[in-house]
Amino acid sequence: MQHRRLNDVGGQQTWVIILETGDEVMQCMQRFAEEQGVFAAQFSAIGAFRRVVLNYFDWDAKKYIRIPIDKQVEVASLTGDIAQAPSGKPALHIHLVVGQRDGTALAGHLGEGHVRPTLEIVLTESPALLRKVHDPESGLALIRTEA
Amino acid sequence: MQHRRLNDVGGQQTWVIILETGDEVMQCMQRFAEEQGVFAAQFSAIGAFRRVVLNYFDWDAKKYIRIPIDKQVEVASLTGDIAQAPSGKPALHIHLVVGQRDGTALAGHLGEGHVRPTLEIVLTESPALLRKVHDPESGLALIRTEA
Amino acid sequence: MQHRRLNDVGGQQTWVIILETGDEVMQCMQRFAEEQGVFAAQFSAIGAFRRVVLNYFDWDAKKYIRIPIDKQVEVASLTGDIAQAPSGKPALHIHLVVGQRDGTALAGHLGEGHVRPTLEIVLTESPALLRKVHDPESGLALIRTEA
Repeated sequence: MQHRRLNDVGGQQTWVIILETGDEVMQCMQRFAEEQGVFAAQFSAIGAFRRVVLNYFDWDAKKYIRIPIDKQVEVASLTGDIAQAPSGKPALHIHLVVGQRDGTALAGHLGEGHVRPTLEIVLTESPALLRKVHDPESGLALIRTEA
Repeated sequence: MQHRRLNDVGGQQTWVIILETGDEVMQCMQRFAEEQGVFAAQFSAIGAFRRVVLNYFDWDAKKYIRIPIDKQVEVASLTGDIAQAPSGKPALHIHLVVGQRDGTALAGHLGEGHVRPTLEIVLTESPALLRKVHDPESGLALIRTEA
Repeated sequence: MQHRRLNDVGGQQTWVIILETGDEVMQCMQRFAEEQGVFAAQFSAIGAFRRVVLNYFDWDAKKYIRIPIDKQVEVASLTGDIAQAPSGKPALHIHLVVGQRDGTALAGHLGEGHVRPTLEIVLTESPALLRKVHDPESGLALIRTEA
């Protein structure tokens, strides 16, 4: 993982984060957010994975179904945000769309993303704090702007 | 719908807008744009829907085909923009990609999106005005930067 | 192609670029980047194409497979970045997801995108320079933040 702050305008910071072969997205971005103290950000990325696990939230069961895809895919769209978990740590949330060899697309919530050869992320951080609060109905922690 | 302005840098404003179970995206974002007077913005979002209607523009017929999807889906990518319609009101344009239980993706122009449990939107508004002008060939109102 | 700078905040510039029927995305964006001297930017877009060529990078063969799609599609997500190629010119990299008449999605690296009737692009340029460096393993030029 390489990263560089491109600019800081009135406290709003733009970062470029480049992941390389062998990097796993959730781990790298969690580490980045903790090291930099990021609690309000959005990012998007393009690149490719050699392996990815998508998740689908089963509303009736209130849990995620794992969809492992064990092959090289294009990361056609990846959008994530960072808020503060009820624990106080940065909470990472990423959704994505990948393209397969025949062009067909798969999409979902990111479980794991194993980069090969690159993932080019641009992140915009706001000098603010977005809080996640436990939602009893879904069982998930969700962003609440007035929290 | 909850919203909060994260920052204002030289007139460029960043908002977080959180939709909740029962909120419909087109209605909520239209109301937001009218209340805040937004005429030049782009936004992106992730979350999930319990029901969504995708549209596909049939070029020969010059009208949208409705593709209703009546099940829980992950909103893997949602990108929208706001300009000013010929009527003078904010004009909302949203495209999206959703992921189904088996990971397969559907994509198109957003007709309706019924949130469950959350849609996390980050919107950047510019202190400018983007105009849409009626395009005789397509029958649609399209953004024209010199208008 | 029409374009307009929406604002400049501390050197960070936001542009709206509107492509029209007959415009090809790679050519238009390459020309835009060269004319404006853009070497660190990200952009996203929605719209529609009458024809598109997706690429999938075959890791074993170390080359792109072409997937031509010769029909009208919705551009559901398009994300691109601009850095500086080893040659010194702006290097454009775009991935996208398109939606077909039945709502099914295709995704990959953009080879060619022929607009009809519009592609609405919002680009954020940083007053910085991102360099691409030849990567011997993949054979591709990849962004290196410390380069």
